[in-house]
Amino acid sequence: MITTVTLNAAIDKTYYIPGFGSNALYRADETLATAGGKGINVARVIHALGEEVTATGFVAGYNGMAIVDMLRQEGIQADFLSVSGESRLCLNIIDPVGGSQTELLEAGPVITPEAIEAMKAKIEELASRSSHVVFSGSMPKGCDTDLYANLIQIARSQGAIPILDTSGDALIAGIQSKPYLIKPNEHEVTKLTGGSADNEDEIVRAIQQLMQDGISNVIVSLGERGALAGSDGRLYGVSIPRVETVNAVGSGDSMVAGLVVADHRGCSPEERLKLGAACGTANALMPSAGMVKLSDVESLLRDIQVTCFS
Amino acid sequence: MITTVTLNAAIDKTYYIPGFGSNALYRADETLATAGGKGINVARVIHALGEEVTATGFVAGYNGMAIVDMLRQEGIQADFLSVSGESRLCLNIIDPVGGSQTELLEAGPVITPEAIEAMKAKIEELASRSSHVVFSGSMPKGCDTDLYANLIQIARSQGAIPILDTSGDALIAGIQSKPYLIKPNEHEVTKLTGGSADNEDEIVRAIQQLMQDGISNVIVSLGERGALAGSDGRLYGVSIPRVETVNAVGSGDSMVAGLVVADHRGCSPEERLKLGAACGTANALMPSAGMVKLSDVESLLRDIQVTCFS
Repeated sequence: MITTVTLNAAIDKTYYIPGFGSNALYRADETLATAGGKGINVARVIHALGEEVTATGFVAGYNGMAIVDMLRQEGIQADFLSVSGESRLCLNIIDPVGGSQTELLEAGPVITPEAIEAMKAKIEELASRSSHVVFSGSMPKGCDTDLYANLIQIARSQGAIPILDTSGDALIAGIQSKPYLIKPNEHEVTKLTGGSADNEDEIVRAIQQLMQDGISNVIVSLGERGALAGSDGRLYGVSIPRVETVNAVGSGDSMVAGLVVADHRGCSPEERLKLGAACGTANALMPSAGMVKLSDVESLLRDIQVTCFS
Repeated sequence: MITTVTLNAAIDKTYYIPGFGSNALYRADETLATAGGKGINVARVIHALGEEVTATGFVAGYNGMAIVDMLRQEGIQADFLSVSGESRLCLNIIDPVGGSQTELLEAGPVITPEAIEAMKAKIEELASRSSHVVFSGSMPKGCDTDLYANLIQIARSQGAIPILDTSGDALIAGIQSKPYLIKPNEHEVTKLTGGSADNEDEIVRAIQQLMQDGISNVIVSLGERGALAGSDGRLYGVSIPRVETVNAVGSGDSMVAGLVVADHRGCSPEERLKLGAACGTANALMPSAGMVKLSDVESLLRDIQVTCFS
């Protein structure tokens, strides 16, 4: 089994409103609601790839009940901790005429110290039955910056492989506990090693530095330009086919899902990167975040090139 | 007891977002959520005035559970029918810097014929224990335009006094069953009688026509200019003091609450109009729709003039 952790689970809701602007009244007749948050997206893609997955994290209130219900309706095992407050609503208003995209993100619940202790116990229990534990996304209010570092150590102590996909201070603090795999973006990876430039030489230098610091796998997605990756001391370049992007939101989460599933299956670094890139690209073909079609993944796998260059 | 009916109950949520516009990402850290829908606003003000009230209508899904829960936390009796789907979210995005107000209204659930039959039975039961039944707001999808007319007849058959505060086709169809009191706005009242002009003479003519047609009480709010009303064949003008309006949303619902409570207490037409106008004005002093402070109502009552002019 693979466990995915979403500390600030959400209801992702999309409104399609032609001509949307401010200071007027709009009727949202066409709406789409899904369980959201990066770790939930990862779980959805792992499930689509046919592997057993459990999604955990914090949910709150009636929105939290709705999130768990939506996951179960998708056939995804949900084992969340319920806390007081309300899980956040993340609203995406798409104007299909003007082409704009307006996002409104709520903050979500404030997590108490007691709930954090309960989460540590939950991760310990799930990790003991998991090959991998994937920690994704931002932390809700009330969590210390080093929470991911603590949870990573707990997962590792139970024999599970920890993976971290977050950003900012949570990433900086989280890498202290040496997760097995991280997926910073090109802007963040150089910041992690004190650099600032965004060119590929700098990215490669940062990847090498992070591997030397004890993080075995560093995958940096470059969007349409593919990815640069370090794995067990070697460097890889990933090139992906050109596709007609429908919605690239969730492509990073889908890539993580592909990487983890391949690792769970004992694949080589090249195969892992291929499945990761295929899932990330397949997600961009779908209108909803964190969804892939298996047939898309399979056909994309044939067109992805992975080159080892050191 | 007074019963209020909200066929399309809602979660009213307000975000305060400085500089809100389209095509960007915003964090809604400051949010306010209340049970909403016009009949629920009426119930809240009746409760604030100290009278026993039961709020009914349709709720759906997790949003519906949240609505009932919020009402109970306010101490308001809630006796809703739960249907499939999700109750609508009505989002109000206030930009405290730019001064704009952007509203996003979902459609809410689609009501089945079986649920409509169950609602008829529910109204019959509640009306048998109520002095008044107040029908407020728009109808959800699946309801026939003449549903209010049917429900009004059911309420009357149980000895309760029916009140209707809606608009458009639902109002046109609803007045066929002669509710005891209606509160159309100045634009709508002339439409009801086939007129079109909005001047006060036309409004008076429309009120007289509606009274002749068998609707005992016709109250037309003119906003800051007060109200014109017909009651038992007589015409009244209501003048209100000038106040610093904070949020006028829900003032009409608050006025209905005041009118109904005064009628429930056996007050004269003048006293009814005074309490209605005081509640409507008191609501405009509050940041949240359908809320009044009793002390505001009491002090406003002294400054409201009701004149009988025919």
